[in-house]
Order: sequence, then C-alpha cells, then structure tokens
Amino acid sequence: MTLALDAAAQDLLFREARTANTFSDEPVGDEQIQAVYDLVKYGPTAFNQQPLRIVLVRSEEGRARLVEHMADGNKAKTSTAPLVAILAADNEFHEELPSQLPHFPQAKEMFFSERSVRESSATLNGALQAAYFIIGVRAAGLAAGPMTGYDAAGINKEFFADGEHSVLAVVNIGKPGEDAWFPRGPRLAYDEVVTTV
Amino acid sequence: MTLALDAAAQDLLFREARTANTFSDEPVGDEQIQAVYDLVKYGPTAFNQQPLRIVLVRSEEGRARLVEHMADGNKAKTSTAPLVAILAADNEFHEELPSQLPHFPQAKEMFFSERSVRESSATLNGALQAAYFIIGVRAAGLAAGPMTGYDAAGINKEFFADGEHSVLAVVNIGKPGEDAWFPRGPRLAYDEVVTTV
Repeated sequence: MTLALDAAAQDLLFREARTANTFSDEPVGDEQIQAVYDLVKYGPTAFNQQPLRIVLVRSEEGRARLVEHMADGNKAKTSTAPLVAILAADNEFHEELPSQLPHFPQAKEMFFSERSVRESSATLNGALQAAYFIIGVRAAGLAAGPMTGYDAAGINKEFFADGEHSVLAVVNIGKPGEDAWFPRGPRLAYDEVVTTV
Repeated sequence: MTLALDAAAQDLLFREARTANTFSDEPVGDEQIQAVYDLVKYGPTAFNQQPLRIVLVRSEEGRARLVEHMADGNKAKTSTAPLVAILAADNEFHEELPSQLPHFPQAKEMFFSERSVRESSATLNGALQAAYFIIGVRAAGLAAGPMTGYDAAGINKEFFADGEHSVLAVVNIGKPGEDAWFPRGPRLAYDEVVTTV
C-alpha cells in the first residue's frame, strides 16, 4: 500500500525524524518558527478553536526562569538547545470564537460558558495543535525534543501570570548534535491498537 | 522562508487539506488504515506511551450504535462516510510501558500508579497521537472529518466495556463528496499566538 505522501516527506516527518536530545550550535531564527506556524495553523480543531500559545525562550534570563522548573533529567538539554518553545493552552480561547468562527459566534456562549468545559477543550485541542507544531518543526528540517517532565504549576505561574494558561509541553528545537538519539523504542502492532466493529 | 518539506506535501497535509463534511462512495480499505498507522505510529509521545486506540466502524450494526450517540448535526455525515474511526485513549496504557520503554520499565510504577495521573497523560498523549493520525489520513490521500460533538459517556460505555477508555474524537474518513467543504475559517496571526521572552 502506497501513501499519497512521497517517501522523502514520510521520512522527514515520521520515519527518520527522532526526538533529539542534543543539538548543534546553529541558531533557529524567528522566521523559521513563523514559517512553521504559517503551515501548521491550518491543522483542524473543534469549532476552529485555537488555544495553542507558544512562548519562545530566547533570553538568558528567560532560559534560567524555565530551566529552574524542568525535571533534573531535562535541565541540561533545555539549557543548551538553540531555541526552546513553551507550548500552552489558553483556557480563555473562547473569547476569540466570535472572530474565528464567524458563521456560528453563538458557540462561545452555548458551549464554553463553563470554565471546566473550556479547560478540557483547550487541553484536547491545544494538544492537537501541539502535535501539528511538532510535525511543523520537522517540516522545517529541524529536530524537535518535546518534554513533559517539569513542574507544570511552576511554569504556568512563571510565564502566564493571568492564571488562564496550562503548559502542554516544552520543546527543544534545533539541528541535532552529537549522539542526539536514543535507540528508537518499540511501537505497538496494528492489531494491538486497531479493532473493527 | 522555505520549509524542508516540499510544497506538494505541505498542500496535501495542511494548506489544501480540509475537514470534509461529505464523502464519495469510494470505500476505504483496512490496508489503507494499516498504511496510515505504520507511518504515524512513529510520532513522539512522553515515555513512548501509546494510549491511542482506534475502533473502525464497518458493520451496519456498529454504525447504528455509534450514530445514536453523535450530536444531531453530526449524525448524517457519520451515517454516510465510507469509514468512521473512533479514537480513544486507553487509560491503562501504563501496562505496556515495560515492553514499550524497555530501558526504563520502572516508569510504570514511578509515574503512573495513580489513575488520575494516567488519565491526564493518556488524554494529552492520546490527543498528540490523534493529531498524527489525522495527518496520516491526509498522507494517504483521504479526507478526514474529525468531530467532538457526541455523548462521550455514551460512546465510552457502548464501545469500551472495561470502563478504562475515553473517547477523544470520531473521524469520518473517505474521498470528499459534493460540496464537501465549508469556507475555510480564519486563523490567529503569528503575533497573537507567539511571544518571546
């Protein structure tokens, strides 16, 4: 069975792409992240909601504020990656629905008036958008190193003073360095994941 | 700024890909879904966890069981799509960690002994995998129609009798039919999503 996507693209995005644990010194420019965003912003979400927020950590001071909240095993790579992106869900995304879902602006009040509903929706759809972003980093020819080992409450408080954001992942971004990869882990077989009714 | 991913692949996966609301009669075979899975199974998750489970709804009886729980606005397309996939998170994914994370089998007990922690992790990482799957459907040259408008508790009970699965999305899959697309919704500008510290 041949996919419509060409083999080189399959390799770039999935088959040969790997979570990098070391990075070269080559910098990652804002224009690269803008190109990534301008591609992956089209990924689908429910109600066209767009809860994903991205904080690019560029300054030494910002890096220090972030590293403090990372798990010990993630501090070294978060300190040395050319660029680090904090991916978070904005739990107040519903404020944008009238402009982002112009044919159904009532959705804001009809479905998202309760904070707990908004938070669940922001987490799920923000995670979809986080996955699109990771794919987009790879589409830019860069390696992504997504991490969830950190003090989430600490990051939320440190970087999102409004109390309305929830960190989803922190992603190291750059060209891979020496010994960048662990051996690839196994994957579940098709029959372990897919059933038919 | 040019991405490493070629323009045709950008179009196939993001720029021209759209959420389909109608489908042609052309069937979608199991071998197509297997090819999708064999590509997107490589998408990264935390601890190499693989909570995503996929139920392909093929029988008339299965279709009727599913449609009953869909929101009214989703019933018609869920009834007529060539194939419907229920994407769910297995909240007991940690049972597989010793085999899927062989260099750190202790992760199962160290991090995932509490059900609430497992469920949060399964939701986040299952959503990442759901996004990879949607991208994979597009990579197969098929249109995806992901939906979250349904009675989640009803679907969980109907299709996952063990009480340990949480539906993440239901996805219609096939070749687009007539008038398959709504006008594309707006997207937030880069500066509304990305900040730098």
